[in-house]
Amino acid sequence: MNHWEVIKSSGQREGYDRAKIRNSVIHAGVPLKEADEVIEKALRSISPPITTKKLFRAVKKYLRTESPQSNIRYRIKDAIYALGPTGYPFERYVAKILEQQGYKVKVGQMVQGRCISHEVDVVATKGRHCYMVECKFHHKGKTRSNIRTALYVHARFLDIKRAYAESEMRKSGLIPKGMLVTNTRFSSEAIKYSECVGLKAIGWKHPVGESLEKLIEHGKTYPVTALPSVNRKNVGVLLKHDIVTVKDLEKISAVNLSKATGFDVRESLRIIKQAYSIYE
Amino acid sequence: MNHWEVIKSSGQREGYDRAKIRNSVIHAGVPLKEADEVIEKALRSISPPITTKKLFRAVKKYLRTESPQSNIRYRIKDAIYALGPTGYPFERYVAKILEQQGYKVKVGQMVQGRCISHEVDVVATKGRHCYMVECKFHHKGKTRSNIRTALYVHARFLDIKRAYAESEMRKSGLIPKGMLVTNTRFSSEAIKYSECVGLKAIGWKHPVGESLEKLIEHGKTYPVTALPSVNRKNVGVLLKHDIVTVKDLEKISAVNLSKATGFDVRESLRIIKQAYSIYE
Repeated sequence: MNHWEVIKSSGQREGYDRAKIRNSVIHAGVPLKEADEVIEKALRSISPPITTKKLFRAVKKYLRTESPQSNIRYRIKDAIYALGPTGYPFERYVAKILEQQGYKVKVGQMVQGRCISHEVDVVATKGRHCYMVECKFHHKGKTRSNIRTALYVHARFLDIKRAYAESEMRKSGLIPKGMLVTNTRFSSEAIKYSECVGLKAIGWKHPVGESLEKLIEHGKTYPVTALPSVNRKNVGVLLKHDIVTVKDLEKISAVNLSKATGFDVRESLRIIKQAYSIYE
Repeated sequence: MNHWEVIKSSGQREGYDRAKIRNSVIHAGVPLKEADEVIEKALRSISPPITTKKLFRAVKKYLRTESPQSNIRYRIKDAIYALGPTGYPFERYVAKILEQQGYKVKVGQMVQGRCISHEVDVVATKGRHCYMVECKFHHKGKTRSNIRTALYVHARFLDIKRAYAESEMRKSGLIPKGMLVTNTRFSSEAIKYSECVGLKAIGWKHPVGESLEKLIEHGKTYPVTALPSVNRKNVGVLLKHDIVTVKDLEKISAVNLSKATGFDVRESLRIIKQAYSIYE
C-alpha cells in the first residue's frame, strides 16, 4: 500500500505519497535499497494521525541514531541557517562552494564602479568569466529574495561593468558578469527579471541542476555547522581560522586544530572524526 | 548677551547660538520681529541647566499656546511620520506635493518594463518630462535611504526606460526620468550615485532649495496630520476621501466633510477651522 492519508502542516489532508518521502530519504544519502526500510521503521515509531511533519521528524530521528552520516546530509539546509545570524559566514561559505566548482575566489572586495565603489561579497573568476557575486542570507523562515534584491544587485553590477568598459582592465579580456546567491528562494518576478537581464540567480532549488543544493551535493561542500559537534559557540572560532566547510577540516590534524582553536584535543578529535564520517 | 552654554542631546556642551534657534522659530512662521520675544519667553519658562532639547521643547510649547498656526508649520516633519505606519499615505502625499508643483500625477501605476512590469508609486508628468517616482517612507528615527534603495530604484527605471525606447509610446516625445523621494535623509553614497546616473533624489533637506521641506513650504502643501484635531483614528477616514493635505480641506465645507466622513459637524468644523488658520 503506497497511499495513506496524511495531514500536511497547512492542515490540508492529502494522500501520503511514499515516493516523495523516499526521494527525500535517498537525498539524505541513504542507499536506494534501504530507503523503504528507513521509512517503515520511522512510520512504526509514530502514532496516528500521521502528518507529513511528524513523518519527516521520525525519519530524521531514525537517521540520527542509525545512520549519522546520512543525517548530516539530511540537514544541510538547517546547517546553513546555523551559519547566521550575520550574512558574513554565508558569503565565505558561498566562496568555498564556488572554489570547489573551479572558480578563483576573493571575498569582500571593494570594486570601483563608474559612479561609486561597491563592496562585492565574492569576486569569482573561471576562464574568461569574472562574476561579481552578491550573497543574500535569509534566516529560517519563508523569506524569499525579492525583485528589489535582484534590481539592486543588477544596478550594482551595471555600475561596475561601465567602469570596467572604460578602464584599462578591459585589456585583460575578462568578461564581467553578475551573480546573486541566496540560501532560500526567489520570487517569480526576481527570476524573470534575472533571466531577462542576464543576472545569474542561484537559490536553494534554482535553477534546476545548478541550484545551491546541487552545487553543495556535487562538490560535497558541506558547511561545518552540519557536524553535530559544531555548535554556535565553536563555529565562530572555526570560521576565524578559515574552516568553513567540512572539507576544510580534512586538511588539519586534531592536534593542530586544538592548537589553532584552543578546543581541547578530545573535542577536536570528535569534530574531525565526524568530518570524516560524512563521506563514508 | 547672545551666547550661553547649553547641553546638546549628545551630552556635548556648546555655546548656545541664538541665531540657530531664531532661524528655527522664523522657519516655523513667526515674523522676524517677534522671534526674539518668542525665544525670551520660552527661555524664561525653563530652569537650568539649559539644553538644546529643552529649549526647543519650550519654544514649541509657547507656540502651541500663543501662535497655533506657527506651531503647525513647526511640526510638519513629525506630521509626515504620523502618516505611517505604512508607506502608502506618504506616496499619496508626495503626489499632492508634485501636483502643487505643476505636475500631472497618477498614483500606484503598473508600468511595463522590458523584463517585468513594475508598480510605480507616482507617475508625474510636467512638460516633456515623465518621472517614475519611488517614495521611501521611513518611520521616526535615524534611518536613511541608502545606496541599495538608490540602486534598485534606478534599475527599475532602466527597465521601464528600455521598454519605452522599444515601444510606440516613444512617439509621444515624453522623456522618462527616475525620481526617489524620502521623508528622511540619504546616505552620501546614495546621493553620489543618484547624481552620477541622473536619478533625481529628493530628501527632507536634499537638494538645497528643492528639498522635500522646501517643496512643502513653497507649495504650502502641509499634510492633514499637521492639524492638532487630526489623530491616528480620523486620518484614515480623511485619506479614504482623498483628503491628504490641508489644502484639500479648503475645497470642502464642514457639512459636506461631516456627510462624507461620518465625523460629527462640530468635529468637522474644528478640523476645517484649523485648516484655515494655518494660512493666516
